[in-house]
Amino acid sequence: MELDLLRSLAVPAETRMLLLVMDGLGGAPRAPGGPTELEAARTPNLDALAARSVCGMLEIVGPGITPGSGPGHLALFGYDPLEHRIGRGVLEALGIGMELTPLDVAARGNFCTVDAAGRIADRRAGRIATELCQELTARLDGISVPGAACIVRPVREHRFVAVFRGAGMHDALSETDPQHVGAEPLGVRALDPAAVEAARAVNAFVAEAGRRLADQPAANMVLLRGFARHPSLPTFKELYGLNPGAIAVYPMYLGLARLAGMAPLPTGPSVAEEFTALEGHWAAHDFHFLHVKKTDSTGEDGNFDAKVAAIEEVDAQIPRALALKPDVLAVTGDHSTPSALQSHSWHPVPFLLFAANCRPDAVQHFSERACAEGQYARLAGKDLLPLILANAGRLTKFGA
Amino acid sequence: MELDLLRSLAVPAETRMLLLVMDGLGGAPRAPGGPTELEAARTPNLDALAARSVCGMLEIVGPGITPGSGPGHLALFGYDPLEHRIGRGVLEALGIGMELTPLDVAARGNFCTVDAAGRIADRRAGRIATELCQELTARLDGISVPGAACIVRPVREHRFVAVFRGAGMHDALSETDPQHVGAEPLGVRALDPAAVEAARAVNAFVAEAGRRLADQPAANMVLLRGFARHPSLPTFKELYGLNPGAIAVYPMYLGLARLAGMAPLPTGPSVAEEFTALEGHWAAHDFHFLHVKKTDSTGEDGNFDAKVAAIEEVDAQIPRALALKPDVLAVTGDHSTPSALQSHSWHPVPFLLFAANCRPDAVQHFSERACAEGQYARLAGKDLLPLILANAGRLTKFGA
Repeated sequence: MELDLLRSLAVPAETRMLLLVMDGLGGAPRAPGGPTELEAARTPNLDALAARSVCGMLEIVGPGITPGSGPGHLALFGYDPLEHRIGRGVLEALGIGMELTPLDVAARGNFCTVDAAGRIADRRAGRIATELCQELTARLDGISVPGAACIVRPVREHRFVAVFRGAGMHDALSETDPQHVGAEPLGVRALDPAAVEAARAVNAFVAEAGRRLADQPAANMVLLRGFARHPSLPTFKELYGLNPGAIAVYPMYLGLARLAGMAPLPTGPSVAEEFTALEGHWAAHDFHFLHVKKTDSTGEDGNFDAKVAAIEEVDAQIPRALALKPDVLAVTGDHSTPSALQSHSWHPVPFLLFAANCRPDAVQHFSERACAEGQYARLAGKDLLPLILANAGRLTKFGA
Repeated sequence: MELDLLRSLAVPAETRMLLLVMDGLGGAPRAPGGPTELEAARTPNLDALAARSVCGMLEIVGPGITPGSGPGHLALFGYDPLEHRIGRGVLEALGIGMELTPLDVAARGNFCTVDAAGRIADRRAGRIATELCQELTARLDGISVPGAACIVRPVREHRFVAVFRGAGMHDALSETDPQHVGAEPLGVRALDPAAVEAARAVNAFVAEAGRRLADQPAANMVLLRGFARHPSLPTFKELYGLNPGAIAVYPMYLGLARLAGMAPLPTGPSVAEEFTALEGHWAAHDFHFLHVKKTDSTGEDGNFDAKVAAIEEVDAQIPRALALKPDVLAVTGDHSTPSALQSHSWHPVPFLLFAANCRPDAVQHFSERACAEGQYARLAGKDLLPLILANAGRLTKFGA
């Protein structure tokens, strides 16, 4: 549904919601005719919950479209992932826990090697050690250019993030990486008249970076790409009057949650510790997002059995979530990651939504095949949140 | 589907259609694990019909959105309820059986009490008797102001409807009710340059109303809100060449039907009498809309058993509808009204569509759980009408 419509219907209530996201939850059979990871897993708690829930399959972006983590989570948070894009630079910045503001344009950076004539000899500067990356980004951090403050943070090896913070910054910028050796780094061009000031700022940064790196044998220049502006989403507070909190182990997911105005909550690294964090913060927030990473990383590793175990590990925690007596508990994923593909995929993702008046359908198990016969056999990813809000009594009637 | 497309495909045929709307049909279990009202009801006729029908669930407006009666019926009549809005004033006018024209802006009115300084002392004028409301609205009816004729009709107690009829009327108007006592009634402001003439007309009306009410101890001023224009829908005649009739006991539903160009048909108040009216008018119209209110009002009352009985009462009439040999018979609701919630709700609504060549699916019962497994597990409310038209041979091929 349109955010403007939802905003106009939002009403206060004393209800609490939990959105439990098993990253990459959807799977596929290991061998023809076999079960998916979720079907192979023993999930007595999720199955019992599914029988009391309304169920279905989420099409996160659209048929055949494989969502990245950014669009996947934006959709689960109720935003249209086709309308609100999260560029590479922003995702990279969120991934290392940087806090971005609406004034920011972020870029992915590489240290590279240029020869005496200024031509690129190695686009990755011989993959310098992460320690050297930390030392060199410290040299570049705080470079001052007209119109922007520059914030530079290391990622790993030759990779870093550069953020240009200023009221006139814009992300319609060409990249500096010519993508092959023997060419000079390209100057940044404004791809839109509104980006002229930003192009000037970035080019000034690159020139100064070259001066500060001149003594380096390998990492003596930088390449920038994936310029992306902060998406400036309306927050859950602005849209629905909610005070949401987010529990996740990896910084990127906390960063995505922060874009929606969720407060990142401290947690230990295990799934059980995430539920302990949930218990500890339950009273302080009316909406919780709890993110489990393992279901995705095991799928990415192509490890069917490990993904099954990860799902079972989450299942074992479900009673703790129910003990909190959430008014709405929704369980799903941000995309599928079948271990057979070792990657994100386009397959719809099962979900269940439990609430006192959810009106359960006939689904008796939490699995891809069962949920595909639920009431919401095919629901747009962004439409799960309105269902959560409705079941929490947070949306009033449309029209008289 | 888009109305322009449907209009372009509409062809004449000698077929007759019946759209039977059980208001608020969808329900929910009274207790966890129990049946919904429709599942608890003994509906041998609807079940037998479902087995010969194509079935599904209607999402009237969208996921999580609870439809009011206006959007609910507009959707069932094939109009996009998000595009065509029916404002409060119009719905109130339809509710008391006023006939509106495309020149009209309607408002909800309150009589109120102001003190000697013109400040509001009672926003509801002590809830005056309906008889006094009738007397006072007669005083205000026919006030003549520049640009508009004013039509004023009583509703109940302190409430009335004011209609401003004129070619220059517009509903982008601020309300006069400051919403608290001690403040003066507000002047109406145009919220759009096109509404300047309307604002002037309404303000002139309010001033004159104050003069005509000056002798009243309590009801000596009026407050107006919910200004709304007639939605000016293209009619069934214009779109599809149909000559539709509407059978309903409550004026509001006849009013909604009239917006689509349906002729209101006289009927007695019981469900059986509505079917008698249907039989009497069958030959005169090629499309009939028959509205049953009891399924909603019992749900609003929170009376599970009474809603079950209301559904069974309709079921008993189904053979009479079939005896008319409709080419298409569609049965559904305009929204859900679970007695557990005592209000309209967001839950999808079951429907069946019976026609000679409907190609029945596997659904064997008319219930929420069964229809959720039908061919149209989740159909937009506005897309039922194109299905009815197609099954009646009223839509030709798209493209060659």
